[in-house]
Amino acid sequence: MNQDLLFDFERSDRIGLSEALYCGSKSPAQVETAVGELAHRGLRVLLTRLDEVKYAQLGDAARALLDYDAISRTAVLGSLPIPSTPPRVAIVTAGTSDLPIAGEASRTLIFYRESAEIIADLGVAGLWRLLERRAQLATFPVIIAIAGMEGAFFSVLGGLVGSAIIAVPTSTGYGVTSGGHTALHAALGSCAPGILAVNIDNGFGAACAALRILWHGAGPTTQ
Amino acid sequence: MNQDLLFDFERSDRIGLSEALYCGSKSPAQVETAVGELAHRGLRVLLTRLDEVKYAQLGDAARALLDYDAISRTAVLGSLPIPSTPPRVAIVTAGTSDLPIAGEASRTLIFYRESAEIIADLGVAGLWRLLERRAQLATFPVIIAIAGMEGAFFSVLGGLVGSAIIAVPTSTGYGVTSGGHTALHAALGSCAPGILAVNIDNGFGAACAALRILWHGAGPTTQ
Amino acid sequence: MNQDLLFDFERSDRIGLSEALYCGSKSPAQVETAVGELAHRGLRVLLTRLDEVKYAQLGDAARALLDYDAISRTAVLGSLPIPSTPPRVAIVTAGTSDLPIAGEASRTLIFYRESAEIIADLGVAGLWRLLERRAQLATFPVIIAIAGMEGAFFSVLGGLVGSAIIAVPTSTGYGVTSGGHTALHAALGSCAPGILAVNIDNGFGAACAALRILWHGAGPTTQ
Amino acid sequence: MNQDLLFDFERSDRIGLSEALYCGSKSPAQVETAVGELAHRGLRVLLTRLDEVKYAQLGDAARALLDYDAISRTAVLGSLPIPSTPPRVAIVTAGTSDLPIAGEASRTLIFYRESAEIIADLGVAGLWRLLERRAQLATFPVIIAIAGMEGAFFSVLGGLVGSAIIAVPTSTGYGVTSGGHTALHAALGSCAPGILAVNIDNGFGAACAALRILWHGAGPTTQ
Amino acid sequence: MNQDLLFDFERSDRIGLSEALYCGSKSPAQVETAVGELAHRGLRVLLTRLDEVKYAQLGDAARALLDYDAISRTAVLGSLPIPSTPPRVAIVTAGTSDLPIAGEASRTLIFYRESAEIIADLGVAGLWRLLERRAQLATFPVIIAIAGMEGAFFSVLGGLVGSAIIAVPTSTGYGVTSGGHTALHAALGSCAPGILAVNIDNGFGAACAALRILWHGAGPTTQ
Amino acid sequence: MNQDLLFDFERSDRIGLSEALYCGSKSPAQVETAVGELAHRGLRVLLTRLDEVKYAQLGDAARALLDYDAISRTAVLGSLPIPSTPPRVAIVTAGTSDLPIAGEASRTLIFYRESAEIIADLGVAGLWRLLERRAQLATFPVIIAIAGMEGAFFSVLGGLVGSAIIAVPTSTGYGVTSGGHTALHAALGSCAPGILAVNIDNGFGAACAALRILWHGAGPTTQ
Amino acid sequence: MNQDLLFDFERSDRIGLSEALYCGSKSPAQVETAVGELAHRGLRVLLTRLDEVKYAQLGDAARALLDYDAISRTAVLGSLPIPSTPPRVAIVTAGTSDLPIAGEASRTLIFYRESAEIIADLGVAGLWRLLERRAQLATFPVIIAIAGMEGAFFSVLGGLVGSAIIAVPTSTGYGVTSGGHTALHAALGSCAPGILAVNIDNGFGAACAALRILWHGAGPTTQ
Amino acid sequence: MNQDLLFDFERSDRIGLSEALYCGSKSPAQVETAVGELAHRGLRVLLTRLDEVKYAQLGDAARALLDYDAISRTAVLGSLPIPSTPPRVAIVTAGTSDLPIAGEASRTLIFYRESAEIIADLGVAGLWRLLERRAQLATFPVIIAIAGMEGAFFSVLGGLVGSAIIAVPTSTGYGVTSGGHTALHAALGSCAPGILAVNIDNGFGAACAALRILWHGAGPTTQ
Repeated sequence: MNQDLLFDFERSDRIGLSEALYCGSKSPAQVETAVGELAHRGLRVLLTRLDEVKYAQLGDAARALLDYDAISRTAVLGSLPIPSTPPRVAIVTAGTSDLPIAGEASRTLIFYRESAEIIADLGVAGLWRLLERRAQLATFPVIIAIAGMEGAFFSVLGGLVGSAIIAVPTSTGYGVTSGGHTALHAALGSCAPGILAVNIDNGFGAACAALRILWHGAGPTTQ
Repeated sequence: MNQDLLFDFERSDRIGLSEALYCGSKSPAQVETAVGELAHRGLRVLLTRLDEVKYAQLGDAARALLDYDAISRTAVLGSLPIPSTPPRVAIVTAGTSDLPIAGEASRTLIFYRESAEIIADLGVAGLWRLLERRAQLATFPVIIAIAGMEGAFFSVLGGLVGSAIIAVPTSTGYGVTSGGHTALHAALGSCAPGILAVNIDNGFGAACAALRILWHGAGPTTQ
Repeated sequence: MNQDLLFDFERSDRIGLSEALYCGSKSPAQVETAVGELAHRGLRVLLTRLDEVKYAQLGDAARALLDYDAISRTAVLGSLPIPSTPPRVAIVTAGTSDLPIAGEASRTLIFYRESAEIIADLGVAGLWRLLERRAQLATFPVIIAIAGMEGAFFSVLGGLVGSAIIAVPTSTGYGVTSGGHTALHAALGSCAPGILAVNIDNGFGAACAALRILWHGAGPTTQ
Repeated sequence: MNQDLLFDFERSDRIGLSEALYCGSKSPAQVETAVGELAHRGLRVLLTRLDEVKYAQLGDAARALLDYDAISRTAVLGSLPIPSTPPRVAIVTAGTSDLPIAGEASRTLIFYRESAEIIADLGVAGLWRLLERRAQLATFPVIIAIAGMEGAFFSVLGGLVGSAIIAVPTSTGYGVTSGGHTALHAALGSCAPGILAVNIDNGFGAACAALRILWHGAGPTTQ
Repeated sequence: MNQDLLFDFERSDRIGLSEALYCGSKSPAQVETAVGELAHRGLRVLLTRLDEVKYAQLGDAARALLDYDAISRTAVLGSLPIPSTPPRVAIVTAGTSDLPIAGEASRTLIFYRESAEIIADLGVAGLWRLLERRAQLATFPVIIAIAGMEGAFFSVLGGLVGSAIIAVPTSTGYGVTSGGHTALHAALGSCAPGILAVNIDNGFGAACAALRILWHGAGPTTQ
Repeated sequence: MNQDLLFDFERSDRIGLSEALYCGSKSPAQVETAVGELAHRGLRVLLTRLDEVKYAQLGDAARALLDYDAISRTAVLGSLPIPSTPPRVAIVTAGTSDLPIAGEASRTLIFYRESAEIIADLGVAGLWRLLERRAQLATFPVIIAIAGMEGAFFSVLGGLVGSAIIAVPTSTGYGVTSGGHTALHAALGSCAPGILAVNIDNGFGAACAALRILWHGAGPTTQ
Repeated sequence: MNQDLLFDFERSDRIGLSEALYCGSKSPAQVETAVGELAHRGLRVLLTRLDEVKYAQLGDAARALLDYDAISRTAVLGSLPIPSTPPRVAIVTAGTSDLPIAGEASRTLIFYRESAEIIADLGVAGLWRLLERRAQLATFPVIIAIAGMEGAFFSVLGGLVGSAIIAVPTSTGYGVTSGGHTALHAALGSCAPGILAVNIDNGFGAACAALRILWHGAGPTTQ
Repeated sequence: MNQDLLFDFERSDRIGLSEALYCGSKSPAQVETAVGELAHRGLRVLLTRLDEVKYAQLGDAARALLDYDAISRTAVLGSLPIPSTPPRVAIVTAGTSDLPIAGEASRTLIFYRESAEIIADLGVAGLWRLLERRAQLATFPVIIAIAGMEGAFFSVLGGLVGSAIIAVPTSTGYGVTSGGHTALHAALGSCAPGILAVNIDNGFGAACAALRILWHGAGPTTQ
């Protein structure tokens, strides 16, 4: 078969975001081959959805090339930069179960030299936890909000601060909320105006959207 | 055909709630026949989902027997009692679009000699409106909460007061929230513990549940 | 990451129900950390959805702190009180497959010093089993009804007794009834008036709702 | 276009049931053309889903050929036979809203010289109405049971009598029960063994199935 | 807990079908307890959905009491009768993947002293296989038809023979046909009149329905 | 607003199919403006989903420019060519309700100088009608098969002839088959190998696909 | 009833966006009352989803207070400002059917003194139309992309420019794309990184999100 | 049981495609029996969905008879021919995760003596990769396009080349795109005219459809 790795090397020039290696539907052999080839070309690449089981099935050589983080299921091929600026993104979660997705978003931002402040467990059942953070949260240009179950968190947050809000519904929950569709629909149908949504569990996409906003949101001259 | 009206006259003895006449899927002719027969037997009956168009299609004799309310789409055959006690149920809505359902619940309570206080437009996008009402709301044993769209209202309310909370999702909304399923799932999957739900747009059912709680919730000796 | 455990210590004051630790979407490490921290602060906490596999993965120290029940998948950190009053809640199930959910509801009630009488296997295919229990069931202010498959149980029960009825649909079943959505919709769309529903398999939520009713249902002066 | 009416004249020989003319998705012009052509050939044909508006749009000649019944939305081209035997099928409904479907089933049976006894309003919220009819119902070889909303009726009936039971879910209801899917799933997932289902609102199909049973159920020599 | 086994011993008298033990959602411990108790009372009982893994987890004593069949996942407690009459039911399948469900239906019939002839692999992609069997199939009063994927089998069969046809959709398939819903909808929406359906994979229910037809379909005097 | 009509005039060069004007979601004013502008440029254009009500709302000038066909809801701006070759496509339908979609496909083919033979009412409930046509159908390189309800037609046809088969599911039907999803899934999940599907009711798309096959299916040198 | 209009007058201070009056689920009487009350207080308010029929049902006094636009179904109570700055938002649509939603977004931006450039009909079936606009589009900090059907537009656009992209799926389409869910899922599941989505047909929400980005995206000191 | 293997030996004569052995829902024992029987008759057969685990569970004798390919999960019983002609089918994929399905299509074509050129990783996020291949792709009469996630690939390809295009949606993706339904709907609802679809992950069916086109698409005299 003609199965060369056709990486989109021009995309980074075009939109400032290079292609990531989504490992969720690739076999360990496919991941290993890609890592070897990309390393050979000296590229820095972010790998997402690389769970611990699959990571352990990679060969020693491939694993040695990667900076792996089990909780966020991400790996970085090449060096992970140290952000020099204070965080411009707040990542807030409704529960501790949402932390793996927060980690994926945070690691993606760091890969692009941005950093984020993660604040967990602000769910609306304990409304005072969130209200006490209102002034602090309003100082961030972009807030990535992560919540599962019924996703009421997005609406309350959207009524409290004027920042750009990127909602990441998570697949935590059971019964009617299992799979994350209720939280997604809550973000999309929010009574608070101007909430934005990405796919369920998509911390990577939320971070990429935040980068688009930070780099371009103030006008065409950025980055 | 053998199509006698088989009304369940014993149900009231058994559970304290008599059978209502749901007009949503009945033809005007079926409603008119039922009203005549029930009036002939001297019964008090509540009619639900009788919209203005269908009401107008009833004959003059049937209309004269009914105390009709267009907004809540309810009618009462026989006298509507005047509640003697102060309201034990609060009916709170997230938006003005939810008022027809609030009316259905309120009229059902009045039919059974209970009364309710209706407070509209407390949706969470304007959180302060709800927070200011917290102490007042906490004095009601039962709160019927009515909201459409994403239904975040239920979770916030459930974290603020300890009363029994009956959530009525409404079919207002569009796109992912049209039909009311997102609001329903938000009530069922709420992060606030102990929220109870009835069917979408079911103000009648919420009132019946409130009556079960008021009559029996404190023990087997009630009513 | 800033991932402090932000427990909602004020909620108990506000609504009388403290926060439970939902373990369904947490890793064993997250559960273990939370248990340690909560024990350090001397708190009594209920853990839900802690299945046997996950429980076995906790360290010895954490396990020693917990009163664990495998069938209901619940654990209590701190002492489990002995209810002093006779049961005010009946927990009835349609089949034996529903017993784990009944156990979750029962353990939640006991955590709050209430007790319940569990009566299993009253499904409507054998209608006489239920009819014989009618008088007994009518003495309870609150009935938690648990059923999977088609959920006809809820409607029949709702036509027999006037108590407050909390329906818990369960995910038992296969084909069109797998996942519990048919039983949930049966509870919500019941032809018996005033049935209340919680999420699929949510025995914990049903018990919390029962507590709201028992504590507040008779008026604002309770507890 | 080549659009000749290709009626399946051999089917009646093969399975004993001739083709009916389903008018639900045909234009008045298509119905009128078909009626004319079938009358020209001297055929007896049953028309289903011919609502009053569409019937009124047919020409006088076509209408004169039809024995039309508005409630069941059926018409018969050619003579409607008078059943000579006592009813072998009971058609029972949970509510009065289900009567149009009962009519469709009944008219289909009559078209084939069978008759049915229709008993309406036996829904389980008033369980005693059904229990009182148990002995009577058990005398019918086939029972067509018609119910919307949550469809608990099917399960209760199935536990009471041993007859062949054909469940027809109806699209009455709203919210989670609108469209009839909950009632359909209740029939299919019933805890009572051996309930059979046809499509939502399909009174015609239920009657055809009853005929298959009556004609062949006792062995290959029938009819 | 009060968890006595409440078997419905009267149901057999009422409808001729005794209660089966559905093992799909029961733990091995629950199955084992039930088997012991039922054996102690000297009852004959059919067990369904007892897969090989769960069967192997039962104790030796319980296994010794059961006549187990791995393919159909059924077991019989007590003796399995030898049908004395020639088969009155044909069980036909579209593919070999449907054979476990055919086995469940067949074993259920045998439990009640009826027998069936199983004919496999008659799917419509090879239409001639089915056409050649037409005359043979028409001799059976009842045909249980089992098919997954798109379920075209039901419609073709229904146009060929006049017997009572019970369609059992199966969950074989992938993509849009995975889970069996397409086959179920094909049975319910068939263009052939009078096809009856049971739940997906429900061979047991199909057999119970066949028994209702065989015992009662010819009139009220049966069995 | 900058709302110039941006027609894709190059597409025809690239793929041989020019852009059609889908009127389904356009207002009469939008259709009228587009027709005027396209006529001004002297273009031949096909309009689809232009129902009679919307057509009647167009101005006289626009209507005069169009060759309109009410049944297929199509119109042609500019001359409609007369196909010179014998039909290379067979359009077969399961029922007469499917004829509007057949018309849309046929008119699209004619727009591109191809013609089709339409054969209606070959549904599988009357299997012999289809079997008699087998030899005739096998002479067409491409068959567009149109069916609603359960879509068994596609599978039977696919097992009888080797031609390329394009299935068009239609939205005729009710209950589980309403909307056309069951027929669509039947086409996609067919047990007959190599059936191809287009969107529900998409006669236009089926014709375009047939043109791609006729023009290119035999190799790269065509047209 | 206690049904005072509880407008959230503080929200504007908090998040910079005042409450809009969603008319989609309000009766003409409710809209008219709200307009009168808001005008009495001298407030500027945006009304959305006010279709022509409902607008015509308002009284003359209410209509005289409103600057109404039929295509976008929006009205402004109070003066509509003239944006002084060049457009910072591009609104691009895949087809002309998407223009009403583009209008809603544009009018919302103007209400807040921002302006937008609308470019219609850039759908990917005519890819060159979009490619030619690439450089122009890349100069906008925020792009609101509006598309129905399969929503491929979002992914192609996201791979071409680095701006913040807000996808608005529209409900145009039929069959599998009717309702807009496919386009919504295409936006959320896009292979281009960092696409953001709002609810189906929600031009208002997209504009509000754009304002959050323009006002806050470059840091906390804005507006 | 009567469970003879009823292979459709005539189908190959009729439509040119012989029956394949779908192993997805068969037990290893069923596969092994079928292989032995088919080999005994000297037949060449293609096996699909035979994953590595199931293949390993076959006996040595069966495995020795098969030419197995793990990636595509296919096996060939009997010799695999060497295609003598240059490829007439292009198989293009959006990502590397789609390669197993590409392999299934390719192996099916080879089984029938056709060959394909596989070109991977042409997804639209990197649009230039696809644009560069346009001229090459246009030389193939048939293109099998394979993509998961949002399926934008199909629309872009359909606007670029005039070949017959068979879209195979894949189940790669997560959240709203998991299972492949979004990609399927994107293919069916594509704005590019004449895209054809097969079931999710159905590489085998796509190849069979390609063969129908290649053999018959140019007229009735082929093969």
